[in-house]
Amino acid sequence: MKLDFDFIMPVIISFGISVVFCPIVIPFLKKLKFGQFVRDDGPETHLKKAGTPTMGGLIILSSVLITSLIYVTRYGEIIPILFMTLGFGLVGFLDDYIKVVMKRSMGLKATQKIMGQFVITVVFIAYYYFVAEYSSETIIPFLGTVITMPTWLFTVFLFVVVLGTVNGVNFTDGLDGLASGVTVIIATFFTIASIALGKGQLTPITLAVVGSLLGFLLFNVYPARVFMGDTGSLALGGFVASTAVILGIPLFILIVGLIYLAEVISVILQVGFFKLTQGKRIFRMAPIHHHFELGGTSETQVVVAFCIITAVLCMIGLAAL
Amino acid sequence: MKLDFDFIMPVIISFGISVVFCPIVIPFLKKLKFGQFVRDDGPETHLKKAGTPTMGGLIILSSVLITSLIYVTRYGEIIPILFMTLGFGLVGFLDDYIKVVMKRSMGLKATQKIMGQFVITVVFIAYYYFVAEYSSETIIPFLGTVITMPTWLFTVFLFVVVLGTVNGVNFTDGLDGLASGVTVIIATFFTIASIALGKGQLTPITLAVVGSLLGFLLFNVYPARVFMGDTGSLALGGFVASTAVILGIPLFILIVGLIYLAEVISVILQVGFFKLTQGKRIFRMAPIHHHFELGGTSETQVVVAFCIITAVLCMIGLAAL
Repeated sequence: MKLDFDFIMPVIISFGISVVFCPIVIPFLKKLKFGQFVRDDGPETHLKKAGTPTMGGLIILSSVLITSLIYVTRYGEIIPILFMTLGFGLVGFLDDYIKVVMKRSMGLKATQKIMGQFVITVVFIAYYYFVAEYSSETIIPFLGTVITMPTWLFTVFLFVVVLGTVNGVNFTDGLDGLASGVTVIIATFFTIASIALGKGQLTPITLAVVGSLLGFLLFNVYPARVFMGDTGSLALGGFVASTAVILGIPLFILIVGLIYLAEVISVILQVGFFKLTQGKRIFRMAPIHHHFELGGTSETQVVVAFCIITAVLCMIGLAAL
Repeated sequence: MKLDFDFIMPVIISFGISVVFCPIVIPFLKKLKFGQFVRDDGPETHLKKAGTPTMGGLIILSSVLITSLIYVTRYGEIIPILFMTLGFGLVGFLDDYIKVVMKRSMGLKATQKIMGQFVITVVFIAYYYFVAEYSSETIIPFLGTVITMPTWLFTVFLFVVVLGTVNGVNFTDGLDGLASGVTVIIATFFTIASIALGKGQLTPITLAVVGSLLGFLLFNVYPARVFMGDTGSLALGGFVASTAVILGIPLFILIVGLIYLAEVISVILQVGFFKLTQGKRIFRMAPIHHHFELGGTSETQVVVAFCIITAVLCMIGLAAL
């Protein structure tokens, strides 16, 4: 294994772009009064975050896009991943834009949001089958065996993977540096997994995401000077889901993306239990990161704990390839 | 490249030990009044840290030791690294113990500390030449060429590497999670470098350090519930220096360990300039992490920035192998 400079360049380029763009774009986001309405369903201590600009996902998207454009002619395999990242980023951007600039506090209607996500996913699946002509093979973690699902089942499975992951990342984005920290570790996992699986042609985009998020984290870490918004979290969800699918390891999201999963499931359980019992709660607050926060663990401790859990899970994921 | 469970087990084991030991050992350290005297040369805001127990390095050392003992019979190559980690850990422990338990605020005398470090290094170098029979070959970063120094020069060089690195890590240990965060990234770099250089037999100890520090970080992150003390920072310095030497990449510490280096150099510059100009300062405060902190960057932001810089440098280091 010889790692040379070509291999590592996407990180350097996208990190550089992110680091240069952040101080330029953040004041601009702030000026245009892109200050976020902090979700009024979070802990009260979060109200102080109200002045922090959002839509920082635009910075992530720009640096990933520019870096990818340098590599895309030589590495056509990254196209579907880039499409999913930008596509979901666009849906998130529309939502953020309506929320923040047009001051409609709810953003896109739920049906509009789901329709947008659905359309992007359909295009991705069509590309997957008919342009890239990938098969419906999936690696089973730990067993190392590869199963081939019937096309209809695999198609349903892809929808579940994409929509589950995207919404998982979206829920994860609720503490300073949480979604970016967890995802930069998962993108590093994807980079190593690509090489281990002989699909190193994908590393330009996985490394672009690593570099971009490392740069963004400098400004997103507690106390955050910018949030990624749905622009960022949906884009990262699209990235994670599509990369896992193209690597043939979507089931590994259950391992390395346990945090995303826990965030979604905590919300589902909380809401379900609340309705069932007509008013009782399982968690102090959902998504689950707020549960720990309200239990007295500080924001930085929850974020670092979730990142460390992800790092350990990613190593288990590598062993399970 | 097939990573299996055997490969990843040291992380799981040492992470597990760290996570189990921390909540057991921390109250014990606190009870024995191992509360640290916060260096009175730090920013005033750090005085609130006075109640936090130190000597958490004992937890790091225990988990690295136990994990290493499981592997040492099959992986004899880790012995000199383990020796340096424990040896420097012992010097640090004596210093901490005198400082904290015997309430002598200065700890070991400077000459005692240097003598201890010197003796450990001499034993390491003797083992390196005469037992392991390693050569004095060193890889030049970026060029990929290997130079062989005359033995006397290489011996002097080894002293500089070891003492420079150890004291660098020691100075780095001044903000919550800083030394542990930076070093966990460098230990990951060593793991990948070991494999890339065909010296995968070293990974049991590099991965043990990764796991140990990930577990420790859960409790060391801002707001820290435990500090590593000199026990931890000297041990980690011994680990970093000896691993780099045995991998033949001590010069790479200049790249991946830039933070350690910047910390040492900032102190040297500050003290030198102060004496030279009879009272003027280059930095607001040295080591350099306090300079940024006093410049208005929060503790967490400085720590994360230093970790991110290290991550990017480690990728450059991988490309420079």
